[in-house]
Amino acid sequence: MITSTANAKVKRLAGLQKKKKLREEEAVFLAEGFRMFQEAPRERLKEVYVSESFYKKERNALESVLNGTGVRAELLSDHAYAYVSDTKTPQGVLCVVRRREYCLEDMLEAKDAFLLVLDNLQDPGNVGTIFRAAEGAGVTGIILSSDCADIYNPKTIRSTMGSVYRVPFYYTGRMGEVLDRINKAGISAYAAHLDGKCAYDEADYREPCAFLIGNEGNGLRDETAKRAKEFIRIPMHGRVESLNAAVAASILMFEAARQRRR
Amino acid sequence: MITSTANAKVKRLAGLQKKKKLREEEAVFLAEGFRMFQEAPRERLKEVYVSESFYKKERNALESVLNGTGVRAELLSDHAYAYVSDTKTPQGVLCVVRRREYCLEDMLEAKDAFLLVLDNLQDPGNVGTIFRAAEGAGVTGIILSSDCADIYNPKTIRSTMGSVYRVPFYYTGRMGEVLDRINKAGISAYAAHLDGKCAYDEADYREPCAFLIGNEGNGLRDETAKRAKEFIRIPMHGRVESLNAAVAASILMFEAARQRRR
Repeated sequence: MITSTANAKVKRLAGLQKKKKLREEEAVFLAEGFRMFQEAPRERLKEVYVSESFYKKERNALESVLNGTGVRAELLSDHAYAYVSDTKTPQGVLCVVRRREYCLEDMLEAKDAFLLVLDNLQDPGNVGTIFRAAEGAGVTGIILSSDCADIYNPKTIRSTMGSVYRVPFYYTGRMGEVLDRINKAGISAYAAHLDGKCAYDEADYREPCAFLIGNEGNGLRDETAKRAKEFIRIPMHGRVESLNAAVAASILMFEAARQRRR
Repeated sequence: MITSTANAKVKRLAGLQKKKKLREEEAVFLAEGFRMFQEAPRERLKEVYVSESFYKKERNALESVLNGTGVRAELLSDHAYAYVSDTKTPQGVLCVVRRREYCLEDMLEAKDAFLLVLDNLQDPGNVGTIFRAAEGAGVTGIILSSDCADIYNPKTIRSTMGSVYRVPFYYTGRMGEVLDRINKAGISAYAAHLDGKCAYDEADYREPCAFLIGNEGNGLRDETAKRAKEFIRIPMHGRVESLNAAVAASILMFEAARQRRR
């Protein structure tokens, strides 16, 4: 059992929690909590660390998930575990998970493509919440501008509630080009925009479509918005001008899901 | 100008930020940032504090909002202001706002009542985000169980983006009784519930209605859920079982808003 926070493994884990660059170099991310551990694709599970008290209580559940993976859990004292945990109330199990690269072509060519395009979304919690809602709505891929929050940020990972394992996504530093390709692929791009004349529920989302969602404070950048087929807006009561980005994205995604159920 | 963090006024403001009990005793809350200052109902604005750099830059805008209120801004050095601010990047203006009590009867008797009932929602950000979306959807009142997050928590206030000033709300320690009164008033209560057989878009929300939203992790308590007229669910793809509470509430509210526009 590792008990010291000066231990090299403990130091590496703490670094992976805090530093995007270290996570990138190893092409991994950290996932914490039993649910994130249980739902991790077996073949991408690289390492598993558990706290002493978690091990005492949940040994059987732990072994049953690990069975056949070839991965063995490494034991940390509660003190050492708390040091590498990102949460205030550590859940006792922390995994190092291998990243998976998705291919933009697959996203564009998918039958009944249903894409989400996030432009400069900066709040990690919002991005994670959007992944979770996107899986629920049946989104087939998420495209993020490279200045969006890092999906591998521990807070984002947590907010996805496991959807990060299942929803294809693609970061791009060339959003304009990607949008041109979306248009060429015959996918209708709808920009959530204050200047939208069409109410969001008046468009038909049963054909291949993409929703463009902008920054929490400033909305979509012009160079992104101008490539949309249509501007749509969510009609609003009161003095509300805009909604939380995760809320706005979810209202649009679930309207598309509603139409596609018919 | 107040420069010391040991100053009694500064100490009181820091206390009001941190302690629910102190806010309750004075029947006030704190609202930070220019937008929250600008949108505060004039008659409820009690005190205004500004940082030195904010004052230098925004003196005219500040005076124009204060004009006619009888309130004078008190100047704090940037150091003292940072001490009383709840945010990492202080916005330079902080108001003490008087609370307003709303009457449950008014909510129940409103024409075309459109209520939201929050049961044990614990995340301050979620509660604030829900207030903002609720105003946008045209909700006429929000009822919260007394174990929900405090709407006057600085993080919640911030997430409402000003909707806290405009959406009537009511905290209750007797949710069962309130739901009985909702039913008696002829308002149809729909519980967002995993056991729902009816998809949320199959019900008719053009008549007086209420949505019951439960805790982030555990959903609605049985004693709340059993008083609903109907259980509804949001049909879900993938392995998603539930959505973020603010997202789920918003999908339901904006479906009602969509129906009511027709």
